Amino acid sequence: MTDRAALDALLDSQWVGVLSCIADGLPLAVPMLYARDGDRLLLHGSTGAGALRRVADGAPGVLTVVALDALVVAPTTFESSVNYRSATVRGALETLSDDDRAGALDRFSEVLLPGRTGEVRPPNRKELAATLALALPIEPDGWLLKIADDWPATPAESDAAEDVWSGLVPMRTVLDPAVPAPWATDLPVPPSVLGLTRSGDA
Amino acid sequence: MTDRAALDALLDSQWVGVLSCIADGLPLAVPMLYARDGDRLLLHGSTGAGALRRVADGAPGVLTVVALDALVVAPTTFESSVNYRSATVRGALETLSDDDRAGALDRFSEVLLPGRTGEVRPPNRKELAATLALALPIEPDGWLLKIADDWPATPAESDAAEDVWSGLVPMRTVLDPAVPAPWATDLPVPPSVLGLTRSGDA
Repeated sequence: MTDRAALDALLDSQWVGVLSCIADGLPLAVPMLYARDGDRLLLHGSTGAGALRRVADGAPGVLTVVALDALVVAPTTFESSVNYRSATVRGALETLSDDDRAGALDRFSEVLLPGRTGEVRPPNRKELAATLALALPIEPDGWLLKIADDWPATPAESDAAEDVWSGLVPMRTVLDPAVPAPWATDLPVPPSVLGLTRSGDA
Repeated sequence: MTDRAALDALLDSQWVGVLSCIADGLPLAVPMLYARDGDRLLLHGSTGAGALRRVADGAPGVLTVVALDALVVAPTTFESSVNYRSATVRGALETLSDDDRAGALDRFSEVLLPGRTGEVRPPNRKELAATLALALPIEPDGWLLKIADDWPATPAESDAAEDVWSGLVPMRTVLDPAVPAPWATDLPVPPSVLGLTRSGDA
């Protein structure tokens, strides 16, 4: 798939990816929330003892995002697989400067839960100082999108008996109704949460 | 978390992980189906032009598996996060030999869809030759399990107003009823598919 809009649709439907990079000569993998901000992916973490501290500014990184849509049960195990959408975005990780961090973190929040920044106070200086913000550019030749959305192979294609059932077992992610924290049961659910439409499906 | 049973529970609840390794000096990330077989994770791919071919036998790899359980909407954006379970399993990738491959691929199928190997013909020689099978050992000090399962920080902990709603938006993966392939609508859904209990939840 070379359609950038399809890439964005997948990235915008999910919340978590796996950031892969190299640290001390070994592969390092960190599951992370991400937020697409135009032509870059924003990532954040603690400036504390996290794995991200071992990755230098400018280091090559790959963020992988996967959505699983169905088990594909074919007439043979060899042909059985899954329907899925996956994206890998490869580039040089940029550590955002103090000047850029506040704006990027607001953007991060707004992408994940639109409207939320207007419902809460802004981050304070201490919070900003405790947060590491990274960006991974989405470059024209830096991403790979794979989409499998097929019926299983037929019995003829599989060299299998005609009477072996095959088909799909669809899977999807659902958001359940919001559950207030124990101290917030008397407060109305805010517009940001009521308006959450992102479901993990495309 | 240092509880191996909790690690296994997460691994056994999911289907897809991200394999991170190093190829040509750069991080390589490949979303993959996996199947836990005791103390190893089985992986497979095509012997064709896949990314896996660039990873040598014995190369260090990490498989990352993530399950997202809730958005954690705190009284501040800084404290907002997600409830999740993630595992990283790190080790040397082993390419399975011709002798081990058939058994490992059967095991792979049985873990993902128990009972299926009894419903279909076994893989033939051509199929086995076209399949690359890898194992990643689960070593006592080779894995990391993280589980976040919390209410958001309180207003006092967040230095936030008391009247800001906070809570959880739970998420889960559901399997929908099986859909037969167009040529299989007259066949009964087999026991393997009817018995599928793995749901992506723990």
